Amino acid sequence: MTPLANTPESTTTSTPARTTLADPDTPFAVVDAHTVRRNIARLKDRADRLGVTLRPHVKTAKSLGIAALLHSGTPCPVTVSTLAEAEAFADGGYPDVTYAVGIDPHKLPRVIALLRRGVALRILLDSAEQASLVAEASRRAGIPLPTQIEIDCDGHRGGLEPGDPALLAIGRVLHEAGCLDGVLTHAGESYFAHTAEEQRLAAKNERDAAVAAAERLRGAGLPVNIVSVGSTPTAHAADDLTGVTELRAGNYVFFDLVMAGLGVCRVEDIALSVVVTVIGHRPEHGWIMTDGGWMAMSRDRGTAVQPQDQGYGLVTDLAGNLVPGLVMTAASQEHGTLTARDGADLPHLPVGTRLRILPNHACATAAQHRGYHVVDGTQPADPAPAIEAFWERVTGW
Amino acid sequence: MTPLANTPESTTTSTPARTTLADPDTPFAVVDAHTVRRNIARLKDRADRLGVTLRPHVKTAKSLGIAALLHSGTPCPVTVSTLAEAEAFADGGYPDVTYAVGIDPHKLPRVIALLRRGVALRILLDSAEQASLVAEASRRAGIPLPTQIEIDCDGHRGGLEPGDPALLAIGRVLHEAGCLDGVLTHAGESYFAHTAEEQRLAAKNERDAAVAAAERLRGAGLPVNIVSVGSTPTAHAADDLTGVTELRAGNYVFFDLVMAGLGVCRVEDIALSVVVTVIGHRPEHGWIMTDGGWMAMSRDRGTAVQPQDQGYGLVTDLAGNLVPGLVMTAASQEHGTLTARDGADLPHLPVGTRLRILPNHACATAAQHRGYHVVDGTQPADPAPAIEAFWERVTGW
Repeated sequence: MTPLANTPESTTTSTPARTTLADPDTPFAVVDAHTVRRNIARLKDRADRLGVTLRPHVKTAKSLGIAALLHSGTPCPVTVSTLAEAEAFADGGYPDVTYAVGIDPHKLPRVIALLRRGVALRILLDSAEQASLVAEASRRAGIPLPTQIEIDCDGHRGGLEPGDPALLAIGRVLHEAGCLDGVLTHAGESYFAHTAEEQRLAAKNERDAAVAAAERLRGAGLPVNIVSVGSTPTAHAADDLTGVTELRAGNYVFFDLVMAGLGVCRVEDIALSVVVTVIGHRPEHGWIMTDGGWMAMSRDRGTAVQPQDQGYGLVTDLAGNLVPGLVMTAASQEHGTLTARDGADLPHLPVGTRLRILPNHACATAAQHRGYHVVDGTQPADPAPAIEAFWERVTGW
Repeated sequence: MTPLANTPESTTTSTPARTTLADPDTPFAVVDAHTVRRNIARLKDRADRLGVTLRPHVKTAKSLGIAALLHSGTPCPVTVSTLAEAEAFADGGYPDVTYAVGIDPHKLPRVIALLRRGVALRILLDSAEQASLVAEASRRAGIPLPTQIEIDCDGHRGGLEPGDPALLAIGRVLHEAGCLDGVLTHAGESYFAHTAEEQRLAAKNERDAAVAAAERLRGAGLPVNIVSVGSTPTAHAADDLTGVTELRAGNYVFFDLVMAGLGVCRVEDIALSVVVTVIGHRPEHGWIMTDGGWMAMSRDRGTAVQPQDQGYGLVTDLAGNLVPGLVMTAASQEHGTLTARDGADLPHLPVGTRLRILPNHACATAAQHRGYHVVDGTQPADPAPAIEAFWERVTGW
């Protein structure tokens, strides 16, 4: 078993010798570090081939322990979804951070505090209102606030369309305050692109929108350093990122059943699962009851809109082997219901049997847990993989 | 403003003078203690009139601060959904605790440790397998493990039907080990009972099932001390609890849009909300964007199956006044989308405006937060209610 490299001391609690997945009380989240490393290497290779910097989004794992697997000891650029993450990663030595949620001006004091600590923190906005407030805060603080303009490529949520008349005005306000740093787009609709060709087109569209916005700004004499694109599906589908400087993705570190349903990964690439215990049987309903409900899995049912609905998750044994046909089909707060699909026989799983549930949406399931019990690769024949570490998550905002 | 009574020192962080809902960075959870007290008094009155002990389920708030509002200083009986809650409430001086999830035998050492501390902790089971393991553990520990048999009244999840042939056998195994303490049922299907009459019938059915099981056990010479029933809808609908000794409910402390949709409460009885900030506008789509996504609200969409789907939640201003027609209709991890319903005009809410979102499911939304900023009643004219305290939640299992 490969040792877990680059583990920051501060976030690793060493566990007693020979603790295994059979030991902690259930439910708990487990991460397979071997699978995480494979997922990370796959996208890193793609980014290298495409000639762009990879800026992983740490909002999925929110863990310095997991993030240490992203690099060889020199912290890489990261994307964050909260200032709590930005602060935790700054504390962990990450010098280059993009906060990829449109800025609430009330949060600017924390942004300025991070910049004063020497962290290259970039913020995001898509309105003249925000640009004026950022420019004003920058002047008052006597420090430029590096800012990217959010570009909308697919009507998913925020951002300006590349041709929006406001783009250049916002660019000028930011540039005059020394704050304009680039453009950023996210193809959120690619989560609903169900074929490889649709994903390739979503990636092209994402690139085209970001590059068009950058060219408009440059055409008006405004500097654009960073042209940032990305989502897990488009990052794995892009075949040409000309004009783009960096690629973002987050979910790929763990992957999940939604991504498997889109064909972006295989079920065996899913690195996050939740260990649960059988606590009862209702044979008259065809149910096996567990102690893992929505508190452990989240209420996310992302596969409900996919051709193959996976309920609250697929079921494996403790070693990670799929239990054929068994699906977690219902959840209350601390109860899960497993049922057999397509006429499969309900397996004989006595009270006390431990199972692992593969999640619909890794970002949401991970958020239900304080941290991860880490195993380093599991063997099909290993009935109780050893726990190598416990890695905490960053919580709150 | 009434002072917040009975606040355990250990869970209250005093906040600086005159901190208001305009101060902490968003998103954050806020609880209106005045509304909580009103909700608590309403069900306490009902339980008193029905002649049963109320055993509130603390799984919704998971907070010693909130629980202190349930009584006048002498900790009341409580129900918990995890052993982490049982341990935290034992530490907080609660001597009488029912752990209402079918027992995983692996967790019995923690149960025994609590019993040895003098906590009257009751566990739950519904199989001969579990009963044998509990009886064995009890004999080995030299201490009876008070145990209730879970009774199914509506095919919702676990439990034995009152007429199940296994009931008496399980009762005997428990009784011989000195562990048999009673029966417990939960009308989980009442969350889908959409009229007052259906809820009244669900309450009758819940009572009938619990009492029938108790009578069968007693008829076989087995002692039944506690006959426990409850869910928030049935607790508010029951008109006769003859034969029942105690009533459980949890959600009612906060209530939520699912309960309002069932008519169990009014929208103004909802005591939990999430404060968010406007971060952008997409007028071409009819969207207002906020910094509160599913990480702040949870993925719970309980009202999706009700006649009036409330999206991810209804919107109020900071004082708690509903913004007419405005609904949170979409969520990504850290983004919320607000839209106007039924042709209502989209209100003018500039970037930086703070709003409160009323949740679908209080148990799920509360679980996304480390704790609650507490206000003590809000006035329609108060643009920024004062924060009186911060009360932490119990997390994990």
